[in-house]
Amino acid sequence: MTGTVRDAAATRQRILEAATAEFSAAGLAGARVGRIADRAQANQRMIYAYFGSKDGLFDAVLEHHVLLAQDSVTFDATDLPGYAQQVFDVYRTQTNLVRLSLWQALERPDLMPSLTPVVRTMADKVAAVARAQEAGLVSTALPADTLLDHILTLAHGNLALAGSENVWTDDQRRDLGVSVALLTTPSGE
Amino acid sequence: MTGTVRDAAATRQRILEAATAEFSAAGLAGARVGRIADRAQANQRMIYAYFGSKDGLFDAVLEHHVLLAQDSVTFDATDLPGYAQQVFDVYRTQTNLVRLSLWQALERPDLMPSLTPVVRTMADKVAAVARAQEAGLVSTALPADTLLDHILTLAHGNLALAGSENVWTDDQRRDLGVSVALLTTPSGE
Repeated sequence: MTGTVRDAAATRQRILEAATAEFSAAGLAGARVGRIADRAQANQRMIYAYFGSKDGLFDAVLEHHVLLAQDSVTFDATDLPGYAQQVFDVYRTQTNLVRLSLWQALERPDLMPSLTPVVRTMADKVAAVARAQEAGLVSTALPADTLLDHILTLAHGNLALAGSENVWTDDQRRDLGVSVALLTTPSGE
Repeated sequence: MTGTVRDAAATRQRILEAATAEFSAAGLAGARVGRIADRAQANQRMIYAYFGSKDGLFDAVLEHHVLLAQDSVTFDATDLPGYAQQVFDVYRTQTNLVRLSLWQALERPDLMPSLTPVVRTMADKVAAVARAQEAGLVSTALPADTLLDHILTLAHGNLALAGSENVWTDDQRRDLGVSVALLTTPSGE
């Protein structure tokens, strides 16, 4: 990389980090681009050049963290309880991700289907679950996409308690594994 | 009721309705008590007299809607898929409740355990599930309280899609019933 390209990448990264803190605390409407620029030692003009708008920056922050979370877990369609527990571990350690998801649900409710890399990664996982179903390794009671959706729903847990720190316990993690096993074990086993 | 008591009850009800609209749209930090007073044809002094503070009003709104939701479903510990689907129907029709729950998770994360009537109603349901487990009518793979928590989690669905209107479909409702049946049917059936 040339110095200029490297500088640009470093600036972009600093903006994403500053925006993560700001959006996580204040949400999309409450966030101030000037505050993000100050924290990132950037200027507002650069933020608009890179991300287009405050909404664009919010979407980029969400995509960045969802992809980071997806990269940090190992997906194995024949061990969906283990996958669910890894996702749980991501939520347990990344408080920012929980808060960003809550803001996104309120302020950008239709964002997820528009994040192409996220959608593509999910489609790969759905295809792998479908193959495991065809091989008789995973229950066919639900279509693969719905099954994966229910597993991720259980992994992030109860909406009413999503902001509480008390829900990320070892007991919850174990019980999540039990429920996902009930959803995924082929009948007759 | 005397006229004064009736007037007070009517005023309290108007304040709750105005506050529901304001909090649902703007959240706790973003809400303005003056705007709620205007919509309710009340004055701010009355709001503080009835509810103590803006936080107190938010908590009262949450409690009001959660209890309304609980009252509108029939709980039968031997038909937990049907219970889950009724809860789903409440979320499907009460968009305010979804948004209020999201704001609550962000801005009052530890509220739920402090709402005594809600906690009491949940405890009754947990006890009924435990009795159904003892009678061999419900799976004992999970403790009764966790089982109920997982059922309610599946009923409100995926956090990332919670604000989208597209998730409240008949297919989702049917699949919810399938998953809850898998979680609750005693093994060996």
